[in-house]
Amino acid sequence: MAESKPIFERVAVIGLGLIGGSIGHAAKRAGLAGHIAGYARSGETRVRALEIGFIDSAHESAAEAAKDADLVILCVPVGALGSVTAEIEGSLKKGAVLTDAGSVKTAVIRDMGSHVPDGVHFIPGHPIAGTEESGPDAGFAELFDNRWCILTPVPGTDKAATEKLTRFWEGCGANVDVMDSKHHDLVFAIVSHLPHLIAYNIVGTATDLEKVTQSEVIKYAASGFRDFTRLAASDPTMWRDVFLNNREAVLEMLGRFSEDLASLQRAIRWGDGDALFDLFTRTRAIRRSIVDAGQDTDVPNFGRDPTHKAPSGKK
Amino acid sequence: MAESKPIFERVAVIGLGLIGGSIGHAAKRAGLAGHIAGYARSGETRVRALEIGFIDSAHESAAEAAKDADLVILCVPVGALGSVTAEIEGSLKKGAVLTDAGSVKTAVIRDMGSHVPDGVHFIPGHPIAGTEESGPDAGFAELFDNRWCILTPVPGTDKAATEKLTRFWEGCGANVDVMDSKHHDLVFAIVSHLPHLIAYNIVGTATDLEKVTQSEVIKYAASGFRDFTRLAASDPTMWRDVFLNNREAVLEMLGRFSEDLASLQRAIRWGDGDALFDLFTRTRAIRRSIVDAGQDTDVPNFGRDPTHKAPSGKK
Repeated sequence: MAESKPIFERVAVIGLGLIGGSIGHAAKRAGLAGHIAGYARSGETRVRALEIGFIDSAHESAAEAAKDADLVILCVPVGALGSVTAEIEGSLKKGAVLTDAGSVKTAVIRDMGSHVPDGVHFIPGHPIAGTEESGPDAGFAELFDNRWCILTPVPGTDKAATEKLTRFWEGCGANVDVMDSKHHDLVFAIVSHLPHLIAYNIVGTATDLEKVTQSEVIKYAASGFRDFTRLAASDPTMWRDVFLNNREAVLEMLGRFSEDLASLQRAIRWGDGDALFDLFTRTRAIRRSIVDAGQDTDVPNFGRDPTHKAPSGKK
Repeated sequence: MAESKPIFERVAVIGLGLIGGSIGHAAKRAGLAGHIAGYARSGETRVRALEIGFIDSAHESAAEAAKDADLVILCVPVGALGSVTAEIEGSLKKGAVLTDAGSVKTAVIRDMGSHVPDGVHFIPGHPIAGTEESGPDAGFAELFDNRWCILTPVPGTDKAATEKLTRFWEGCGANVDVMDSKHHDLVFAIVSHLPHLIAYNIVGTATDLEKVTQSEVIKYAASGFRDFTRLAASDPTMWRDVFLNNREAVLEMLGRFSEDLASLQRAIRWGDGDALFDLFTRTRAIRRSIVDAGQDTDVPNFGRDPTHKAPSGKK
């Protein structure tokens, strides 16, 4: 799969967790970078990333890693993007492309934008892919295959730079869409942020009851509950920052959700079976569309191994 | 795996969908039944079940299938259990065990109980297993392996009959728990019914917005939303009946959920990052416990094939 010529001679990946690691793996798979320089706050993570080999060099600071890079990708929680940009501001090369992988875009433009020197092309990005794992061992080259990556360049951004970044993401396996940051934040408030919030909330509720014990909740989780626990196992820092930085859009979608839930509650209270049946039929069709769009597997139960047992053999 | 001697000479399975089919497959795998008689309302389903071979004979009525059976298992939606029991009432053999697979137990005892003739052992049951698929082709022998099955016998039930049914479910691969029906309904209101309700609701909300199109929701579903669509693709009739028949417990749990959600909403509005971080950390530990208990896979993303593509190759 290696291309004859890298798209960017030197790439810096700041933050070496699930997303940073997967970018490193994917870039190496397709030969998209001449050299990948990496930085993570934890020395242990830097050592591990070098060991695994998804970066070529590890650096003691973000500024050092970013020095001379043609592409700098910040893969740190949304709340840290502003301060990291301030740290590397002085070492960014003229003509470099600066991007991120944050799940929120308007607040990121506000936080990073003021630190971007003239001559550096700042193009915010959001790859729509992930797992519930984190850390340098969580990444893999296929994470972005057939997923979407959204870029939200501000008006006036250099077209050639956007095209180059697009080719880089396509080389990582993704399809690229360009979108306004405000619209991005609204779309992801409903397809990503609210689902995570709801998942975190129900797991909290379920483990906080007097009449049902936590061990019962765990034991019988296969009846539906376990599906929510995957999202609710996502990185706490990342998700705290998402909610703090996309407040208005999340509150708007949460309002809609609660309104609909109140109406469903009323249907249950009054035994309105037709209203329930109508909704349950409509939602079934949506899953079919998602599978048809290649955005989920059509294997039942997400293809979970049906024979999975307790790792230690306990019941 | 076949036992030397069947646990029940003649088993009748009424309802030949995901659960009825899986019981047939599992019973055959372990030689638990001398003969499996089947009935489904649809003639097409009966023909298909015979073709697949998880029943040995198909019958024109539930009463005919139940005749002479030593174990009768009703695998129809909760709302139909009362009328099906009335239909078979006259043909149940003395000493037979009658059970069901409904997700609600108190209402089922009320609906079925009055139709159970003297000398028939009525032992309500609930296997905690399933997928989002339905119909005679959806079942498979491993569905109950290492899952739980709950029995809720009413006081005074024959101990030997309960033990025999327990052995049957264990032969199907399940672990069996015995529990009071009211407690069952409360536990499953939170671990199963509320998760399904929330999933149906958010899928409804997401596809009903003006500012975000349905095609955007589908396209970007991999960012979290798609996890909910699996539960929201479950059988509409089955789930309508669950909510109509476990109203009080569901409303109680829904009240708790909404209370907690309001508090989370407030934390977002006021930028209380610590409250968010604390909850998100607590919920992460719960998933670990579920995996340790053997009730979910520890493979990231539920083990979804990371390369899954659109079935037709479209993007």
